[in-house]
Amino acid sequence: MSLITKRDLPIGLFDSGIGGLTVLRALQTALPHENFLYLGDTARLPYGTKSPETVKSYSMNANEILTACGIKALIIACNTASAMALDVLREKFYPLPVIGVIHAGARASLDSASIDPIVVLATESTTQWHAYRDAITALSPSRQVIEWPCQLLVALTEEGWCEGTLVEQIIARLLTPLFTALGNTSPAAVLLGCTHFPVLKDAIQKVIGDTPIVDPAHFLAKEVKTLLLEKNLLRISSSLGSTRFMATDGIQRFARVAQTFLGTAIAPEEVELVTVIPTISVVKKASQS
Amino acid sequence: MSLITKRDLPIGLFDSGIGGLTVLRALQTALPHENFLYLGDTARLPYGTKSPETVKSYSMNANEILTACGIKALIIACNTASAMALDVLREKFYPLPVIGVIHAGARASLDSASIDPIVVLATESTTQWHAYRDAITALSPSRQVIEWPCQLLVALTEEGWCEGTLVEQIIARLLTPLFTALGNTSPAAVLLGCTHFPVLKDAIQKVIGDTPIVDPAHFLAKEVKTLLLEKNLLRISSSLGSTRFMATDGIQRFARVAQTFLGTAIAPEEVELVTVIPTISVVKKASQS
Repeated sequence: MSLITKRDLPIGLFDSGIGGLTVLRALQTALPHENFLYLGDTARLPYGTKSPETVKSYSMNANEILTACGIKALIIACNTASAMALDVLREKFYPLPVIGVIHAGARASLDSASIDPIVVLATESTTQWHAYRDAITALSPSRQVIEWPCQLLVALTEEGWCEGTLVEQIIARLLTPLFTALGNTSPAAVLLGCTHFPVLKDAIQKVIGDTPIVDPAHFLAKEVKTLLLEKNLLRISSSLGSTRFMATDGIQRFARVAQTFLGTAIAPEEVELVTVIPTISVVKKASQS
Repeated sequence: MSLITKRDLPIGLFDSGIGGLTVLRALQTALPHENFLYLGDTARLPYGTKSPETVKSYSMNANEILTACGIKALIIACNTASAMALDVLREKFYPLPVIGVIHAGARASLDSASIDPIVVLATESTTQWHAYRDAITALSPSRQVIEWPCQLLVALTEEGWCEGTLVEQIIARLLTPLFTALGNTSPAAVLLGCTHFPVLKDAIQKVIGDTPIVDPAHFLAKEVKTLLLEKNLLRISSSLGSTRFMATDGIQRFARVAQTFLGTAIAPEEVELVTVIPTISVVKKASQS
């Protein structure tokens, strides 16, 4: 009879939807013996065009589901949720370790780029609220960070368009104003500040030439491993870990689109539907949004 | 002193976000003396990738806000919400007249196309649940309707990409499998089954050649005028009507993106923020989504 310990509990992985599966993939590779519990808030995706208050509210609400299932650590894979809700999630779920992807991305970009500027490609909200600029300059105050919104690339990858001439033309059109503003000189590094973008890495590389591209997921996986070792929570087992998938809406679509991001297929039967019900509406005149 | 009557109440216009402003524009043109109250559920957009249960739940919840403000009729501008939630909204808000865009689109396409097939370009959800096929064949049972998902065009228009060679190439890539399946013959008509798509009308026309393109909004405006006359609710005034805008999130973004769809600019100060709070989570294992 084997004893189930806290080490065997899954690592919770939260994302606004499907893109976070690129982070799961990196974690599964780095930590093959761990169990994972992935939750995609597909009923309310995308977070990337929504306000900090709304992203906080959705993140707090959805992560109650993950923590109620029993997890040993919580990874906020979604860049937008990491940018806006990490502090409130840490407070709410204390003493559960809560790790966001933004800090790992900031560390990874500083490792890759010794000169300026560091360019961050992200969603509208992550860009607008300067999550990466703040995280990078908190570690290295004098660094120059340019955050560039590429919201359209989210829809592009969910359509399964990840390579080819047309995809490169779309990326080029999004990035041309940036490169023009940089005087057509190359940045030191381009950080993929949205979990959808790693599947476009080759296409982006063709557009930007030799500039190194940084995917925070690999650095995040290292951070998680270090944390688990520190807290004596690394799973000790000869068997590979398993992964459980949950989504707040559309499990058929989740399963269909997942392969692009995870690299392997998921059957709809493998995804559990978790329903989030809106119940109260408050009407208020706003001074800002 | 002028008397405020029921006729002076605004017409409520509901959309999942910003695309419904193309419908508002058509209504303002056809009914210049009417007042309008527009609500975009920007906190939960897009509806087009979400399940019927979720779209019903969001639509019921958000439209309580519109009806609480006092309206004389409710127009469901969003195709996805019209497809999935019209019946429950009619029941919930009875005896308020509730009109969906799908029926108008079905009528409009039959007016424009005497031969088959009728092609409907729409979101994933509208397509998947066969809203237009059912509405058109309910009016004319033998007609052949092909519903074609173009979800990517929603993000494209919200990016403000509405014309030019690259946009036409993207549209062509989305439509090529359809035209190949049709043996490269032209359909009788192409119906724009998503409120975002009218701003792409010229670009779509360049891709599909001479095939007539049908925008339900103009037919809807006629239906609304007929209904108001029948119910003695048409506003009688020498002055032009006014429009009030509400959104459930991101009024800065709403105002910024609005111009693409409405044709005129809106200042953020003109948009009221209406907050929707998620409060209850129910975890259940689903057999389908």
